[in-house]
Amino acid sequence: MTAKKLLMQHPFDEALALTPRPAGAHEHGAAAACHYFGRTHPAYANMVGPFGGVTAAQALQAVLRHPQRLGDPVSLTVNYAAALADGEFSIEARPLRTNRSTQHWLVLLTQTGADGVDATVLSATAVTAARRRTWSADDAVMPVVPAPQSIARPVIAKRVKWIERYDMRPCAGPMPSHWDGSEADSLTQLWMRDDPPRPLDYLSLTALADVFYPRVWRRRALMTPVGTVSMTVYYHAGADELAASGEGYLLGQARSQSFFNGFFDQSAELWSEAGQLLATTHQIVYYKE
Amino acid sequence: MTAKKLLMQHPFDEALALTPRPAGAHEHGAAAACHYFGRTHPAYANMVGPFGGVTAAQALQAVLRHPQRLGDPVSLTVNYAAALADGEFSIEARPLRTNRSTQHWLVLLTQTGADGVDATVLSATAVTAARRRTWSADDAVMPVVPAPQSIARPVIAKRVKWIERYDMRPCAGPMPSHWDGSEADSLTQLWMRDDPPRPLDYLSLTALADVFYPRVWRRRALMTPVGTVSMTVYYHAGADELAASGEGYLLGQARSQSFFNGFFDQSAELWSEAGQLLATTHQIVYYKE
Repeated sequence: MTAKKLLMQHPFDEALALTPRPAGAHEHGAAAACHYFGRTHPAYANMVGPFGGVTAAQALQAVLRHPQRLGDPVSLTVNYAAALADGEFSIEARPLRTNRSTQHWLVLLTQTGADGVDATVLSATAVTAARRRTWSADDAVMPVVPAPQSIARPVIAKRVKWIERYDMRPCAGPMPSHWDGSEADSLTQLWMRDDPPRPLDYLSLTALADVFYPRVWRRRALMTPVGTVSMTVYYHAGADELAASGEGYLLGQARSQSFFNGFFDQSAELWSEAGQLLATTHQIVYYKE
Repeated sequence: MTAKKLLMQHPFDEALALTPRPAGAHEHGAAAACHYFGRTHPAYANMVGPFGGVTAAQALQAVLRHPQRLGDPVSLTVNYAAALADGEFSIEARPLRTNRSTQHWLVLLTQTGADGVDATVLSATAVTAARRRTWSADDAVMPVVPAPQSIARPVIAKRVKWIERYDMRPCAGPMPSHWDGSEADSLTQLWMRDDPPRPLDYLSLTALADVFYPRVWRRRALMTPVGTVSMTVYYHAGADELAASGEGYLLGQARSQSFFNGFFDQSAELWSEAGQLLATTHQIVYYKE
């Protein structure tokens, strides 16, 4: 790759670059795990560590790059065990079971602590499948909202870098402008895409599933400390449907059902601009107070 | 335990019994995994293998029985990698990361195949946490339905044993009476509890999250082959809230958002009879045709 090409690479693709790591001697003969090194990317920095959506995409990338991978992602669950430290991490993708048309994966992401000991910072499971054409139906009703081009991109306080990597245009439930503790519903609807634009794939779709600001901030108009504990993405599109979405906007809709003693849930849907439901996603999030 | 006490044990508790298994020599020094033997239970038999809700509960049981477990379940994701064979299985629960108030778990369930080789039949991840009392809010609106006592328990074709272990009283979206391919919505609402009644706990709540018959059967009035691939449960209740539910009914509501080329999703909520949202749950399910 030339230097010029490198400079032109999208920051998301830079973030998703994994370097194969030779397996340790103890790994030979075990199930066919692949090991990689990855790095957090400064363009996707969050308050502490990186934006979790990119970390989820890195976990999925380890599966997609595995030479024995069968088919496309159907589901992904990512458990955020600890805040990632900025810098290098190790990532391991292991096929736990390969069936005729489905495959089950375990992904573990580790970092070496100040004490020199490797610790798990993220675990993930994924299912990939060779899909066949069947009867299909899109039952989730896409909300009727103004076109993305008609909505001004809000001027946001750029406290965190990753926010700048997404073009987000809220249709409903924007970030509260007054943090006054006034209770509201937890619903947000917004158009979203990578900035700069980038053709949609399973990796960017995964990251986009995590762009919603914390529902408890909307619900309470209070900026309390939060952290996603576990996120699941179900993929309802093949590579053709993702390609058809191209660099267009996705419409995202998110809301919560329960806030209970320190943990709230979030359910969200992501539609292509043309109106196809591409993914549904759920997460459980820690909150303080 | 006396023979009489054994005879009086609830079949669910019989199914959830795990026998500690000494770790192999290669396990010493590794993270503190606990190994158990479990068995499928004939009272919870499904068409092929056991009812998946009980298998999910067995995976959670391995976490709950671990001597180093911290707090109560917040989330559980179970991936069904293969149909369990009736009989014995091995189960391993490993704490991947223990933080101050949360703990991340990996559970692997294996069976020895006809070829003598151990194969993964289920993987699961879970998060447990020591919850603290915080501001809380129950946003999901419980549907207004008739009381369970006013709804007759339907006479069902007892094709599978596990159905007899649940007292289910449909309020809306019952199993189609005519399999004529007429399309409908995917919604089902029903009262549910163990049969015989059993005080609610995290284990039975987990199994109850999986009692809904396949959404695609309701949606299409066609009984096509199906199989849950991955299920996630988010727990929105502490031990006190579960105890308050006692042996009462839970109201369950389930529907799908997408049926796409062989996989559909299901999202569901479970409320106590008194109206508290105890769990939300999501799954992705394989379907044929």
